[in-house]
Amino acid sequence: MASNSFGELLKFTSFGESHGAAMGGVIDGFPPGISIDLDFIQHQLNRRKPGQSAIVTPRNESDSIELLSGIFEGKSTGTPIAFIVRNKDQRSKDYGNIANVYRPSHADFTYHKKYGIADYRGGGRSSARETLVRVACGAFAKLLLKNAGIHVLAFTKSVGEIMMPDAFTNLSPELIESNPVRCPHQNTARQIELKLEKLVAEGDSIGGVVECVISGVPVGLGEPVYGKLSAALANAMMGINASKGFEIGSGFQGVQKHGSQQNDSFIVENGGVKTKTNNSGGIQGGISNGADIVFRVAFKGPASISKTQKSVDKTGKSVNLSVTGRHDPCVVPRAVPVVEAMAAFVIADHYLRNEVYCKFR
Amino acid sequence: MASNSFGELLKFTSFGESHGAAMGGVIDGFPPGISIDLDFIQHQLNRRKPGQSAIVTPRNESDSIELLSGIFEGKSTGTPIAFIVRNKDQRSKDYGNIANVYRPSHADFTYHKKYGIADYRGGGRSSARETLVRVACGAFAKLLLKNAGIHVLAFTKSVGEIMMPDAFTNLSPELIESNPVRCPHQNTARQIELKLEKLVAEGDSIGGVVECVISGVPVGLGEPVYGKLSAALANAMMGINASKGFEIGSGFQGVQKHGSQQNDSFIVENGGVKTKTNNSGGIQGGISNGADIVFRVAFKGPASISKTQKSVDKTGKSVNLSVTGRHDPCVVPRAVPVVEAMAAFVIADHYLRNEVYCKFR
Amino acid sequence: MASNSFGELLKFTSFGESHGAAMGGVIDGFPPGISIDLDFIQHQLNRRKPGQSAIVTPRNESDSIELLSGIFEGKSTGTPIAFIVRNKDQRSKDYGNIANVYRPSHADFTYHKKYGIADYRGGGRSSARETLVRVACGAFAKLLLKNAGIHVLAFTKSVGEIMMPDAFTNLSPELIESNPVRCPHQNTARQIELKLEKLVAEGDSIGGVVECVISGVPVGLGEPVYGKLSAALANAMMGINASKGFEIGSGFQGVQKHGSQQNDSFIVENGGVKTKTNNSGGIQGGISNGADIVFRVAFKGPASISKTQKSVDKTGKSVNLSVTGRHDPCVVPRAVPVVEAMAAFVIADHYLRNEVYCKFR
Amino acid sequence: MASNSFGELLKFTSFGESHGAAMGGVIDGFPPGISIDLDFIQHQLNRRKPGQSAIVTPRNESDSIELLSGIFEGKSTGTPIAFIVRNKDQRSKDYGNIANVYRPSHADFTYHKKYGIADYRGGGRSSARETLVRVACGAFAKLLLKNAGIHVLAFTKSVGEIMMPDAFTNLSPELIESNPVRCPHQNTARQIELKLEKLVAEGDSIGGVVECVISGVPVGLGEPVYGKLSAALANAMMGINASKGFEIGSGFQGVQKHGSQQNDSFIVENGGVKTKTNNSGGIQGGISNGADIVFRVAFKGPASISKTQKSVDKTGKSVNLSVTGRHDPCVVPRAVPVVEAMAAFVIADHYLRNEVYCKFR
Repeated sequence: MASNSFGELLKFTSFGESHGAAMGGVIDGFPPGISIDLDFIQHQLNRRKPGQSAIVTPRNESDSIELLSGIFEGKSTGTPIAFIVRNKDQRSKDYGNIANVYRPSHADFTYHKKYGIADYRGGGRSSARETLVRVACGAFAKLLLKNAGIHVLAFTKSVGEIMMPDAFTNLSPELIESNPVRCPHQNTARQIELKLEKLVAEGDSIGGVVECVISGVPVGLGEPVYGKLSAALANAMMGINASKGFEIGSGFQGVQKHGSQQNDSFIVENGGVKTKTNNSGGIQGGISNGADIVFRVAFKGPASISKTQKSVDKTGKSVNLSVTGRHDPCVVPRAVPVVEAMAAFVIADHYLRNEVYCKFR
Repeated sequence: MASNSFGELLKFTSFGESHGAAMGGVIDGFPPGISIDLDFIQHQLNRRKPGQSAIVTPRNESDSIELLSGIFEGKSTGTPIAFIVRNKDQRSKDYGNIANVYRPSHADFTYHKKYGIADYRGGGRSSARETLVRVACGAFAKLLLKNAGIHVLAFTKSVGEIMMPDAFTNLSPELIESNPVRCPHQNTARQIELKLEKLVAEGDSIGGVVECVISGVPVGLGEPVYGKLSAALANAMMGINASKGFEIGSGFQGVQKHGSQQNDSFIVENGGVKTKTNNSGGIQGGISNGADIVFRVAFKGPASISKTQKSVDKTGKSVNLSVTGRHDPCVVPRAVPVVEAMAAFVIADHYLRNEVYCKFR
Repeated sequence: MASNSFGELLKFTSFGESHGAAMGGVIDGFPPGISIDLDFIQHQLNRRKPGQSAIVTPRNESDSIELLSGIFEGKSTGTPIAFIVRNKDQRSKDYGNIANVYRPSHADFTYHKKYGIADYRGGGRSSARETLVRVACGAFAKLLLKNAGIHVLAFTKSVGEIMMPDAFTNLSPELIESNPVRCPHQNTARQIELKLEKLVAEGDSIGGVVECVISGVPVGLGEPVYGKLSAALANAMMGINASKGFEIGSGFQGVQKHGSQQNDSFIVENGGVKTKTNNSGGIQGGISNGADIVFRVAFKGPASISKTQKSVDKTGKSVNLSVTGRHDPCVVPRAVPVVEAMAAFVIADHYLRNEVYCKFR
Repeated sequence: MASNSFGELLKFTSFGESHGAAMGGVIDGFPPGISIDLDFIQHQLNRRKPGQSAIVTPRNESDSIELLSGIFEGKSTGTPIAFIVRNKDQRSKDYGNIANVYRPSHADFTYHKKYGIADYRGGGRSSARETLVRVACGAFAKLLLKNAGIHVLAFTKSVGEIMMPDAFTNLSPELIESNPVRCPHQNTARQIELKLEKLVAEGDSIGGVVECVISGVPVGLGEPVYGKLSAALANAMMGINASKGFEIGSGFQGVQKHGSQQNDSFIVENGGVKTKTNNSGGIQGGISNGADIVFRVAFKGPASISKTQKSVDKTGKSVNLSVTGRHDPCVVPRAVPVVEAMAAFVIADHYLRNEVYCKFR
């Protein structure tokens, strides 16, 4: 059934296959009168695009966005915003050898069984290339949030066993973007870079964790009890390719704490109610409480590796498989803008959902 | 906006406040012709209800379900199934002292700011008492799944630092239900029980982890790319009160593994394609692959503790607060049936969503 | 699939069978802080209830509403408002003789074929008794609209060939409610009453037209291009039992006019832009233009008549059928509050939908 | 809020402004494995496109469809089908003179007030040019329905006072397409053509009625009680530009009949249950009963006329307005394929919705 749309009041619909004519999206419910900075949007796409550094896939795509509707004289009009990004460097022949093989931990098998047919070229619809649509839609959401004083920032927290110090809190966008792994702690970044270069050489891959911090969120976003902001973020993040886990605030570690240690005491600061600590991660009862929203997403290592693996083909025969083609040794550096984009879209949607009641409280 | 419904083709709508007249739900989209075993449904509610053991809140509720519609001569008819559970032991006076105080890490503050008004009695709509609606709706879903050979089983994996051995895999329902903490490993269960009794005495609380295993799932459930089964489960779990994290398959630990270690090789077994390992947790590309679906949910310690905490009242004054009333020292034992129920509902919904294409593959 | 909910931001879910335990509904998305006048709501139900006059079914139901949730200290709280109305006068034995016969132009045949099972007692879910849920939900919507200065008024325009003069425009609620047929033109009302008494005696039925006028609607309600206000009203009206047609403004008659006769010229009045005429019926491009919204709904004669008809039973045998039991000779007088209720709900939903953009224009 | 999508399980999202870069759509939920005949789809677009005859607007557009995704080796894959149609003959200067004037009975005023901003060129989003998206999406739906033996046929029933004889039932597609007004009764067609030529010369316009007949519909389509097939069709039709009324089966005329005249008796024919008459228009209780679905849609005369009209500009000054540019004297001939398309999409959506229960009846 129809399941290629995301969001409620602010909604986008995504389309496109990795080796089809184009990827694209339609954003519906975007408010009128917002200035649209196309350079900003293209810049977000560039942060995700392939070929940007030695530690990501060398597929050569400019990922240039073409706007088709919804903008008039530089501003949104309230009508659907549609865009496409043409696919250019489609080396479908690279995939001829996997047309009939189920790649381990890939979606080949499940798509084939579910639909009875699948565009296998480059993973077709299951390719992470689809995340460019999310990044573009998230960029529009960021323009909307900027007007409201809300900022979304994600970064690489860990890759494999290499982890950024928890104590490090200098999360400036410049520091994050200053290295190809998008880790603000430069020493950690260098270790990760070396690790990834080694994995490229070995034909293997690895996982990691992205952390995201959203600041400036007003109190009140989130719709109990089945539209909680925490649940909406989890849904968004677990829908990103290769994600295996989501936690907010104190997360999995916090389960070991007593309530008396974990509870965030309320205090009064500058005339406003705040919490002294933020184990809640900025959300209580599914509603933002004004503190920074802080969550983490776990990504496994990419399934596509050139190391030889055992698998099965569509006729049920065992085969040895080495996935050639062009792949990332780790999704985390390019997942950073995707996490940001989806977070921004969720927050923007809930920002509008909260407006419904503006007159009534 | 409207956000008290859950599901797509199979959908339930929940209503009720902790100290209002009744809790209840309406299930819409339930297929016709399914035999409805009311004893089974009441039994599921009993697993969640208060007062069932010394380590849960003593609030005295029979939680008896009353069916209002949708069943005719013992079978579902395809029309909405509505039910209510009357609230009986409402000691609202217990809450008089907190009518004007924001309890730390509770939803008091955010509800009050979002809606401008809130039924504060027992937490009102934000109370975990609402999860009885989920358990009842999940029980109906389980009846549907049983017909399809699908079974959902959850259990207590850990409480605080006390963790069940990973190697223990005897997950029979009987073992799980044989102790009040719902941990199938009896030695772990006893340690947890002692820990919780100690916390009751101290007026404190603690968190834990629930694991869930779903067996018998056919290949093909899940709707890419924004209705992935993994995302749907995450959304369901992160919507349960006090949940702070979700992970599937290898989860957060798996990020440290190489792709070559993490990938699930395909093999042929009894003429069918299977995976040799299950790091994917039964879902690949957002679609079930036929293996057991395995995920974990982290729950923080309950926010309501009788230990004195610092907080703020609605006028902005600092106060010392001891939350009296009747509370659980740990949500995990009673969260087990809630996790099962929501998982069952998600799977049943996706089971129907997958039927849409039955003719076309 | 799930299809017993109505509305988008403001949504209700309906349940109940004619001869089941209760009818009821859950309203979700209702704004907080609205004073809830229960007497008003019960009064609306009384306008629809059976037994209110000699020209409607004598089924004896008090149709007393019982509120279960969502109201605290006389005000809405933003949480779901649930209510039930117990069924009391269920003479199911009346329907024993039709358990196996498809009543002509009834839903017996289609429900049986679609679901394979149906609660045949009193029509089960297909009974017009379900419209009491709509009336109750519409009554809540009216309370919301009253705050916004919006009023909804419906009345009987015609029954059979007896039609109210077009020139008559005194549409006061008092005049409409002053006679059992709900026609404000008293002479027409008397003719209709006589006609209906005659039909009761003959065991036959007849159709009619309800007109609805909504005043005080601000400019801007309606969501192009697939959420047009006109389309939403049509959807609501064509979902009412026995409705066969919907038209807005100049409607079917207007197709014979030239554009130069039909177009509504804009004029300036009291500093505001208005239209000189209202052939548009208050909606242009799917959006309210500030003029009265005016539409009409055609209802066929009730299918249940005691006159003998030819039909077929479930085994495929021809039978002669006389539908005994208790039925209305014409649905129009009791459809008036149903049309009002559904119109009010649509307008209230769109009123909230329009609020989303309040900051952006 | 988001409102540019149509359908539930089968859903399309539309985008584009009359004088923007492109119109387009994304179809989501289309089943896999359906052969896609692009010539057929282009042919449907050609039936709607401007410039096809002397009685429609001479705007010169090829309306060539470009497919972007969702088709692989000639078949649908179950992933979103996206397409665009580039706008070519955009004479936006034609509209310079109306940039600041509200055209009577147009959407200029309401869009401007709702959004605070509007692309006025050619009506922007409110232009009937958007219906090309509906025709393309409906063409895909027709391919799906053809596999199921369902056929949708619409035609011009009347224009102004010129009406086709009710007794004429030879509704072949060839006869309908044999004249530019799409009326199968050739004598009526000629009268209408003459009438429209006269109106072009006078700079005026007129309305008319389209009738639609859907054959081969299985019993069971339609989802009570708020997803009735009749309500879904009404919603679809009242969302088409310039529509003012909808009726099904006996419609507005039928309200004058007695139940005993109006009821459709059940009979047994070739072992199946049928109705002797079809006053129900193929739908009973909101569910298709296997008979032809028959409905009519009323369209007003186009608002854009070159005859001088009184209006108001955005500063509130009275103006005399003659809408130059290129317009249709009557929408009906080009509305025929739009009505068909929307009807086909509704039926295809409900066809899939009915599949959900395929196992359970």
